[in-house]
Amino acid sequence: MTLREIMELSSRSGVLSLAIGLPASELFPREALAEQAARVLRTDASSLQYGLPYQPLKTQIVQLMSLRGVRCTEEQIFLTSGAQQGMDLLSRLLLPPGGGGQVLLERAIYDGIRLATHGQRPEILTVAADLDTGMDVDGVEALLAGGARPAFLYTITDGHNPLGVSLSAEKRHRLAGLARRYQMPILEDDAYGFLYYGEEPAPPMRALEEEWVFYLGSFSKILAPALRAGWVVVPPRLAARLSPLKHGADLDTPSLGHRVIAAYLEAGLLPAHLAVLREEYRRRRDAMLAALREHFPAEVLWNHPTSGMFIWAELPPGLDAAELLRTAVETESVAFSPGVVFCAGDPGGDRSMRLNFTSLPPERIEEGIRRLGRAIRAAMEKLNRA
Amino acid sequence: MTLREIMELSSRSGVLSLAIGLPASELFPREALAEQAARVLRTDASSLQYGLPYQPLKTQIVQLMSLRGVRCTEEQIFLTSGAQQGMDLLSRLLLPPGGGGQVLLERAIYDGIRLATHGQRPEILTVAADLDTGMDVDGVEALLAGGARPAFLYTITDGHNPLGVSLSAEKRHRLAGLARRYQMPILEDDAYGFLYYGEEPAPPMRALEEEWVFYLGSFSKILAPALRAGWVVVPPRLAARLSPLKHGADLDTPSLGHRVIAAYLEAGLLPAHLAVLREEYRRRRDAMLAALREHFPAEVLWNHPTSGMFIWAELPPGLDAAELLRTAVETESVAFSPGVVFCAGDPGGDRSMRLNFTSLPPERIEEGIRRLGRAIRAAMEKLNRA
Repeated sequence: MTLREIMELSSRSGVLSLAIGLPASELFPREALAEQAARVLRTDASSLQYGLPYQPLKTQIVQLMSLRGVRCTEEQIFLTSGAQQGMDLLSRLLLPPGGGGQVLLERAIYDGIRLATHGQRPEILTVAADLDTGMDVDGVEALLAGGARPAFLYTITDGHNPLGVSLSAEKRHRLAGLARRYQMPILEDDAYGFLYYGEEPAPPMRALEEEWVFYLGSFSKILAPALRAGWVVVPPRLAARLSPLKHGADLDTPSLGHRVIAAYLEAGLLPAHLAVLREEYRRRRDAMLAALREHFPAEVLWNHPTSGMFIWAELPPGLDAAELLRTAVETESVAFSPGVVFCAGDPGGDRSMRLNFTSLPPERIEEGIRRLGRAIRAAMEKLNRA
Repeated sequence: MTLREIMELSSRSGVLSLAIGLPASELFPREALAEQAARVLRTDASSLQYGLPYQPLKTQIVQLMSLRGVRCTEEQIFLTSGAQQGMDLLSRLLLPPGGGGQVLLERAIYDGIRLATHGQRPEILTVAADLDTGMDVDGVEALLAGGARPAFLYTITDGHNPLGVSLSAEKRHRLAGLARRYQMPILEDDAYGFLYYGEEPAPPMRALEEEWVFYLGSFSKILAPALRAGWVVVPPRLAARLSPLKHGADLDTPSLGHRVIAAYLEAGLLPAHLAVLREEYRRRRDAMLAALREHFPAEVLWNHPTSGMFIWAELPPGLDAAELLRTAVETESVAFSPGVVFCAGDPGGDRSMRLNFTSLPPERIEEGIRRLGRAIRAAMEKLNRA
């Protein structure tokens, strides 16, 4: 099953979609961004011109990073067009261009990292992940001890996509230590790190290891995707090597989005907005968890994410998630993402589902889970009859 | 001499710079774009969300292309983050990733194409260019007849960067024919095609050949660079193959810039703005040509561009342009780009200069050329004394 097929199924008219990882459109601070955009354009004569990467945004990001417990300097910030571009540029920098490099991933992982590395044709090494504590660090250590030398390990520390899990504090320390010991770069994707729904999570691995952890940040989930803005925190010597790569990719020059975000941050508007997002997304997560308890058969398992946008669920043996998606769209007009989409290793018989809880209001989430529960029961009955 | 060194020299305080290819900041329609940006953000709930490439912009670009005599459909338009990204994605699509491919360029050409192809480590084949009629098509034909099989030929049809020349109508036909005959893709960069200062130029090669000419368009020079918006016109089967590449590079999703431009175009504001740009840039070109006649020694040669942003000049034998730049900045506080920056082949002793005439008002241009003329005379006298 391809992402395109899921998009096609989930965008059919009348379908309640829990499939795509969209932030809530109605929570975008459109009025504030409209004001800042108009002000930037009216008052700054250089706002539309070519130039060097936008320094005021770097200054703001240094402050933002300190909220995550990360100390860094402007020289360590490299501005990108979203975290995806960070993955692309770092893949080009770290992987040999003609193939033969290795990348170490969890078996279930954001599919964009495979698209970003595809051109360098790396060998993909995978390890498992625990749904409560994250990446299998024993597995990572065994691979490294066995001689694997990945160009980098990629993971999502908080609110993992698709697994919903946050890496335990102990595993953060162990992974950062392995990076140091084996001089293995870690691409730490923190797109969801500011979206937590209880206590503040432990700092990301970049707070533990400056030299070998390369941090990927993004404004897409905490502000808005269409501003196309992200950043990378790397040692300064690497930032200098990323610049010609970005120049070749799309010119290393400020975009209107970068300037608008800098103005928004300078106006001090982000903390209150983050508080709104956390409160509303927590409400939606709780609505989904309550609906799962009420409407899903007891044989289905799921986890309880403390960050991010997704819950990961596993169907009982014998069921296939991709097949369930097709019938769920047909019979119940509800969609989700089958785990096979995120599978970096051998998918096998795939029984897992990624459920997004941020894009719909609570009552629609509940209705979606109710419908999906009916579709699962029908599939289980069919299986029992067979 | 590196681009970074030129940037450093030309950005020193008090230096009049003719070095960088900047559009005139004071002509950006900032107020109109501020209005459109605010309106888009306030009225369109999806304006900040992930989504499919922005269809209304494609619709507008189809109309824009018809002004250049190019007939195309929305299915042939692929939206990018500036023309540079078009080069990057097409390089990744057309060149073998591990090296071994060939790219055919003019000896003096926009340096961004080499940055865009660098990762694929191609063999660079070069031909000369005539300063009145453009690329040496006999040279191209000889290479092809001799067995060269470039993954693509890249050129700039109108207002060539750095040469200022526009390809003659006859050469457009011959090159398009060679592309067809040898099934050789041409990447036709038309970033300057709407900026002409006399009669409308002949249509680009894409108007002559749909299958093998891939057109690169950009809003950077006709609207504003910071909107980061360009497009590619390719056969629909190629547009489909570019999408996963852009997804891996920075997600294939609309940016705020794309939406603002679409709104600006829908409001019908571009034609009057283009008329303003053409009139003012013609005035600046004429001011530079007049100043060259008045202040440059008779031994210096230059051409008379009918499009674009640059005049190309050649110093007398014995002088070196990079060396001249260093002394011109020191003694006369004036800067330009030495031709060596754009050299895709063997630079040899480089005597050429690229002079930008769009970024400064006419009186500053005249003053810059006056200073540069003095610096050249001083260098010639020094040479004669030696």
